[in-house]
Amino acid sequence: MTNTDKILVLGGCRSGKSSHALNLAEGMGGRRIFVATCVPRDDEMKDRVDRHRRERDATWDTLEVPVDLAGTITAHSPSTDVILVDCLTLWLSNLLMRTDDVDCIRRRIDDLAEAVRSAPRNVILVSNEVGAGIVPENRLARHYRDLAGWTNQAVAAACDRVVWTVAGIPVTIKPAFQATAP
Amino acid sequence: MTNTDKILVLGGCRSGKSSHALNLAEGMGGRRIFVATCVPRDDEMKDRVDRHRRERDATWDTLEVPVDLAGTITAHSPSTDVILVDCLTLWLSNLLMRTDDVDCIRRRIDDLAEAVRSAPRNVILVSNEVGAGIVPENRLARHYRDLAGWTNQAVAAACDRVVWTVAGIPVTIKPAFQATAP
Amino acid sequence: MTNTDKILVLGGCRSGKSSHALNLAEGMGGRRIFVATCVPRDDEMKDRVDRHRRERDATWDTLEVPVDLAGTITAHSPSTDVILVDCLTLWLSNLLMRTDDVDCIRRRIDDLAEAVRSAPRNVILVSNEVGAGIVPENRLARHYRDLAGWTNQAVAAACDRVVWTVAGIPVTIKPAFQATAP
Repeated sequence: MTNTDKILVLGGCRSGKSSHALNLAEGMGGRRIFVATCVPRDDEMKDRVDRHRRERDATWDTLEVPVDLAGTITAHSPSTDVILVDCLTLWLSNLLMRTDDVDCIRRRIDDLAEAVRSAPRNVILVSNEVGAGIVPENRLARHYRDLAGWTNQAVAAACDRVVWTVAGIPVTIKPAFQATAP
Repeated sequence: MTNTDKILVLGGCRSGKSSHALNLAEGMGGRRIFVATCVPRDDEMKDRVDRHRRERDATWDTLEVPVDLAGTITAHSPSTDVILVDCLTLWLSNLLMRTDDVDCIRRRIDDLAEAVRSAPRNVILVSNEVGAGIVPENRLARHYRDLAGWTNQAVAAACDRVVWTVAGIPVTIKPAFQATAP
Repeated sequence: MTNTDKILVLGGCRSGKSSHALNLAEGMGGRRIFVATCVPRDDEMKDRVDRHRRERDATWDTLEVPVDLAGTITAHSPSTDVILVDCLTLWLSNLLMRTDDVDCIRRRIDDLAEAVRSAPRNVILVSNEVGAGIVPENRLARHYRDLAGWTNQAVAAACDRVVWTVAGIPVTIKPAFQATAP
């Protein structure tokens, strides 16, 4: 099955990436699964999850998948037309709470990218850009930032389309747009 | 009056957004008002304000408006051709010093967007992207980041044109550029 | 000698900028010099340097130049076809460890931009975007962020081409791409 879309929607906090990903998915029709990587641990997170859930209409099924994204994307029933994963940076946080073995994490990232590439359905993934601020003083935050960048690179390479969101505006950066002469 | 430009210039710190906004305004001719949201409270801020003021030529009037942007944009004399607001993230900080009522702040953001949309003159607004770094440990900073993102989205939706600045380079992201086939 | 390329590759942490800069340089053929501004001071930095070195093939000479980039770019033997500098934000950190005289630093930034502009060979420079996160609480970090922005602006103005990298995807932002009508 070659006629599937694999799309990464990437942007800063509150840049409109989740809304844009929902719009893309709802334009695709069919059976939709929303894969939430968020497992709420406090009221602030719970509020975000509830707000997102209210933004989706009844045509969505929701799964909470903190870690096994690759398995969810590949193993799911063929009658599912689109899987929307929101979001990869939280998935990475969940992984890091279970292991600090970098090789293991890198393998998980590669497995995820491969699952996206080979899935026989549309897959839309949301991720945060976290690397364009000042270098964090906290060593763990630097480590996380590196891994988030690797995740975004690996998944972007596996997708046909990458959309960078700024202030609610989706900017398609893959496939490349054409620069004009100066 | 439909033939007006509403432009948001958005970028990171020292990305050239204020200079670009000034250039845009000076290309529009006529009577210009610079609306500074900055009310300097220490020497560092005072230096920034003075530097910006020196960068403007004598054709500008300057108003210091810490909070009532919507009123300033709509109520101002029709003989004013362009209002340049610099910048929205500082305006948001000023608001947050007066209230922590999120509904009130959201209403202010909506009012601002509506004022931009309906103003019978050119309006150029400068804002900071603050959401593309690591998630801040500080809860208030996370709250601020969310509100700044909402402000940028609401104002971007009200503008005909949105310019993303990087390293002094203005990149027009609204209206959309055309992606080429892969 | 006018037929040279001057390219700035700019992006967040782990956005693929170094790899892209290497690819650009390896597409240019001839004698290549890699100018590393990194002088490793701890194991974390040493690991990064070693990883980058392993990513380059044997056609590269490597110089460690913590501060005198302008001299290295202009004075080097004319038989060198391309100089790749990685990266400018670390160069700025090295400068700031030697002086806190802002005028001196601004002069160094201008000298670097002039060296890039006038060098009789291809020059590719890598730099970090550090200004798109929340305003740092630390005053020195704010100062650094300003200077990094000025460096990126000055060098971008001296380059024919500027590439913004996101998730491993190079987005050419200079020369400008053409926006389409809405």
